[in-house]
Amino acid sequence: MLVNGRGTRSIRLAEPSGAPPVPEIIDQTRLPHELRFVLLETLHDAERAIREMWVRGAPLIGVTAAYGMALGARSDPSDGGLESAARRLSSTRPTAVNLGWALKDMVEKLRPVAPASREAAAFEHAGAMAEADVDACRAIGLHGVGIFEQLAASDTPSGELQILTHCNAGWLATVDWGTALAPVYRAHRSGIPLHVWVSETRPRNQGAGLTAWELAEEGIPHTVITDNASGHLLRTGRVDAVITGTDRTTSAGDVCNKIGTYMKAVAARDCEVPFYAAVPGSSIDWKLGEGEAGEIPIEERDGSEVSQVRGLGPDGRMTSVRITREGSRIANFGFDVTPARLVTGLITERGVCPASRKGLASLFPDKAIGEDARG
Amino acid sequence: MLVNGRGTRSIRLAEPSGAPPVPEIIDQTRLPHELRFVLLETLHDAERAIREMWVRGAPLIGVTAAYGMALGARSDPSDGGLESAARRLSSTRPTAVNLGWALKDMVEKLRPVAPASREAAAFEHAGAMAEADVDACRAIGLHGVGIFEQLAASDTPSGELQILTHCNAGWLATVDWGTALAPVYRAHRSGIPLHVWVSETRPRNQGAGLTAWELAEEGIPHTVITDNASGHLLRTGRVDAVITGTDRTTSAGDVCNKIGTYMKAVAARDCEVPFYAAVPGSSIDWKLGEGEAGEIPIEERDGSEVSQVRGLGPDGRMTSVRITREGSRIANFGFDVTPARLVTGLITERGVCPASRKGLASLFPDKAIGEDARG
Repeated sequence: MLVNGRGTRSIRLAEPSGAPPVPEIIDQTRLPHELRFVLLETLHDAERAIREMWVRGAPLIGVTAAYGMALGARSDPSDGGLESAARRLSSTRPTAVNLGWALKDMVEKLRPVAPASREAAAFEHAGAMAEADVDACRAIGLHGVGIFEQLAASDTPSGELQILTHCNAGWLATVDWGTALAPVYRAHRSGIPLHVWVSETRPRNQGAGLTAWELAEEGIPHTVITDNASGHLLRTGRVDAVITGTDRTTSAGDVCNKIGTYMKAVAARDCEVPFYAAVPGSSIDWKLGEGEAGEIPIEERDGSEVSQVRGLGPDGRMTSVRITREGSRIANFGFDVTPARLVTGLITERGVCPASRKGLASLFPDKAIGEDARG
Repeated sequence: MLVNGRGTRSIRLAEPSGAPPVPEIIDQTRLPHELRFVLLETLHDAERAIREMWVRGAPLIGVTAAYGMALGARSDPSDGGLESAARRLSSTRPTAVNLGWALKDMVEKLRPVAPASREAAAFEHAGAMAEADVDACRAIGLHGVGIFEQLAASDTPSGELQILTHCNAGWLATVDWGTALAPVYRAHRSGIPLHVWVSETRPRNQGAGLTAWELAEEGIPHTVITDNASGHLLRTGRVDAVITGTDRTTSAGDVCNKIGTYMKAVAARDCEVPFYAAVPGSSIDWKLGEGEAGEIPIEERDGSEVSQVRGLGPDGRMTSVRITREGSRIANFGFDVTPARLVTGLITERGVCPASRKGLASLFPDKAIGEDARG
């Protein structure tokens, strides 16, 4: 998508002349105040980028981890090196299913390859994974825009389509296009008048910082609100549809996503506003069936993310301020689960389906067969 | 309630020897980092204290406005002076019903009094209003603790009563005891094991800053969470009851309170957790009946409250950091309405009742007669 009017991606290969390829990312913790590109030169760099959330969003985490495996293979292409790299990368963020999936896939692909060829194979495979992600997001946009076209045609109260989103499920969370924002970008480019309510998404404010930044770069009208204000907008008829991403979706359609998603979904249901999750197939956990969403480990992060708010200080430098009393006990849950019954539909790269086992199985019969065998 | 182990109040009369009485408040914008008492010496000081939210919370706003009228009468006790003072104070915060109620009451009491005696009468009447508020809050605590005793007796999963609250409806929002926190204080003092989940309450973080501070001073176990985390705690069985205050309640039981309250109530209902509002009679708007909650003006405050987060900087001084890109459009709604159907019960100074016209009329037949006449 656009940055300063030019197309870019959240992760690309930089190839300085005569040097081996090096992945380049955006340090998203600096946004929206500073656009800083960072080269990942070692496995350690990739681990750090994921753990420190320079990159975030399930799909981008997966692709970054895949490039991390390639960097690992560059320094130690042995079987032990592969396994050690996968173990180190896997411990950086426990909830994102794409992380485990990408690492497993890389290990399976690389193990049969002779060590001397593993680096090249790893870069090739990580690149293919990135392209597959772009294709999936593009397809989510094409399927999702159909929903927006229908809603826009049905006489929205404000004369423009009012979308509410949460956190950042845009191109910064993927490689390009994004998941929840892909239909928004597509709708905007096809001329549907729309406006996006962007909830700030405490504690890390990815809505206020990243989603608003993406939308501004693309020229899409939007307004930042507190997470608390979402319910008021829904209740007063100022939202036509809610759309979020997902970090992990069970095969029964329960959506695990950024903390606060569940409250939006339950308020949307109360107000009869449709709630959609944009779900790349790679984020579906086929091992988890009905009633098993409780088995998803919910990452508890450091309390300082809540007590210390980071932003641009009066001197123009990134600064943190403490909003709690020193020593206050804090709990910081990263995700919550929205039960399938509150989800109007899942927008996948293969089409839109009801949030149910049957719905997902109709789009992913190849995957769901495993699910049947499991039961 | 306790501060540094000694009982205090949110507004008191300071009477330096030989000087006329001067109201003293706490500048709540400095909490939890600094405890600063401020003297209100003029009508202008009182206006500023309310507008700048040095004092906040519907009951405390009402009492501060009453003292503001007394300060106004000190400098201009004429009829014109009374009316001008009431007009100026009334424009400081549009949503809090107590503000209009207190000002009307003061004007009605003072108009028949000879101008020379108005200052003394005004201080006396403002003092009585403060005492009446303390009595009401004390009574809310006594009625509410009965609910907590029942819940605690019914085998709570954690072995202690888990309460979720929002914003600050403690003694800092009233004169003493608080509304939503009064039953919490009472329960704690009577030995019921309990723990309070304190949602930070963006944009101004009155939960993280004020409620957590109050509870810490009183020695009550508590944990600060993001507003977004409330739904996750409810869904995973970690909350036994939700209790909030109210800024205005319609005669039909619809609760207008700090933005974010509605989402807590709707999630609580989805999770079958009881949701209570602590409602002093003074905050009931008898003019608004069924389906008329939409007529409550919802204060829209400056967007900088969302974009700029205020806290203690690394240098130990109060600092603001910007979390949005410069120029991002922001909407900042102060309140939302929780429909009566989502409210398990209203805890008033006269007892607990269902959130309905009939329920409130049973406790306030004297007021509800006016409501009948209205219809």
